[in-house]
Amino acid sequence: MKKRIRLYVAYDGTDYCGWQIQPNGITIEEVLNRRLKKLTGEDIHVIGASRTDSGVHALGNVAVFDTESPIPPERMAYALNQKLPPDIVIVRSEEVGQDWHPRYQQKVTKTYEYHIFNAKVPNPLKRRYSTFVSFPLDVEKMRKGASWLVGEHDFVSFCNVRTNVEDTVRRIDEIQIRETGPDITIQVTGNGFLYNMVRIIAGTLIRVGRGFYTPEKVKEILEAKERTQAGVTAPPQGLVLVGIEYGERQYNGRKETDLF
Amino acid sequence: MKKRIRLYVAYDGTDYCGWQIQPNGITIEEVLNRRLKKLTGEDIHVIGASRTDSGVHALGNVAVFDTESPIPPERMAYALNQKLPPDIVIVRSEEVGQDWHPRYQQKVTKTYEYHIFNAKVPNPLKRRYSTFVSFPLDVEKMRKGASWLVGEHDFVSFCNVRTNVEDTVRRIDEIQIRETGPDITIQVTGNGFLYNMVRIIAGTLIRVGRGFYTPEKVKEILEAKERTQAGVTAPPQGLVLVGIEYGERQYNGRKETDLF
Repeated sequence: MKKRIRLYVAYDGTDYCGWQIQPNGITIEEVLNRRLKKLTGEDIHVIGASRTDSGVHALGNVAVFDTESPIPPERMAYALNQKLPPDIVIVRSEEVGQDWHPRYQQKVTKTYEYHIFNAKVPNPLKRRYSTFVSFPLDVEKMRKGASWLVGEHDFVSFCNVRTNVEDTVRRIDEIQIRETGPDITIQVTGNGFLYNMVRIIAGTLIRVGRGFYTPEKVKEILEAKERTQAGVTAPPQGLVLVGIEYGERQYNGRKETDLF
Repeated sequence: MKKRIRLYVAYDGTDYCGWQIQPNGITIEEVLNRRLKKLTGEDIHVIGASRTDSGVHALGNVAVFDTESPIPPERMAYALNQKLPPDIVIVRSEEVGQDWHPRYQQKVTKTYEYHIFNAKVPNPLKRRYSTFVSFPLDVEKMRKGASWLVGEHDFVSFCNVRTNVEDTVRRIDEIQIRETGPDITIQVTGNGFLYNMVRIIAGTLIRVGRGFYTPEKVKEILEAKERTQAGVTAPPQGLVLVGIEYGERQYNGRKETDLF
């Protein structure tokens, strides 16, 4: 009997060309498919919730696959982790309904974090998981700028072009900016994100923090509805997909502690 | 005119065979010597304060070298960073007296941190900079155990054998154990550390946290004065040399913010 298994997947994206299978390099999806084939003997194609870009990390991406394997769904995480490289970890596995799809759910909340290391020189222990910014950032101004983005808006100014044009209205529930010494974290929660949206928000808020843009400029960019108005796309290594909530489970605040 | 320059060196030790030059692999010392030769045209041999082991990291190791280069001492950090790989960063550079030696100073205080990720599954974003422990650790017990180590003691039980036998009495000024969700950090400050001492302390405190040892066992190990009594040497990737203080400068608490 076919069962559908849901995986919560964490990975260090540094050495991968993103989630989705592509001809030019190794991807998370490909590694999962290969290891699942080894484990089950079946040809398996995982379906991911979020096709993260090259170099982007995740603590709780979600994927499903169908299998007839006798391995109990909850044990699948452990079995798979024995075969995965150390930069990909299955945090949890469980059975879901046959028609449950990670990208087509009524109620979805995604949380991303963008990490900045703000100091005079880079910290070599942070370089893989943050963006280094050497000019001092005014976090209060960044918070003011970010406040314009909360709510339901057309985020087309914060979206890079992709092949298929789609509805560009999204809802941001919360943007929190935490500062701990030289570490600045922008945490964004919302019902969905356009292509590169969080990285363009981060790039724009960095300009606000630097004083290149006033906080009010963020409102103008949003209203302009034109990509060229916003800041540059911030680099991928600062971005982490922290978690995806389907309304079944309540996370609050930091997801990491809950998932691990 | 020869000048002696002091460097504060941060590095991700993952891909290095430690600080000290050795025939079997690339070391921090070797990379610094080579890049300094490129920069100055002179044959330069840096002298390091702490010869960290393979895989161990640093935020503020200290090294000196002598040069006749016209580059201003304070600019040396910037000039060198242009030539260094991203996993080695010179945080600061400055001139010191001709006879100032990083290992032979009256008053020295070193701070190390040992990082543990304590959860059911490993976090791929923490694997390079922490040790994964899957069984739950009781941090209060670890703190009680650690309290026996504070003060001046013969730490021979917490020292792995090296060629030259030496005085094994050292003074630990403070051990702080911080817990933030699944992250546990053991911060140790003292006037010097024997070979592998912090890693053996970490390995021992992990056993205490797990319940294999009572907190009082730490006192017994110390009094036994025998290496075989203590816990295993915890893996290198959890260890960071946070900073070295020579009594000239006052750091307090976290050094990272001050240095960067």
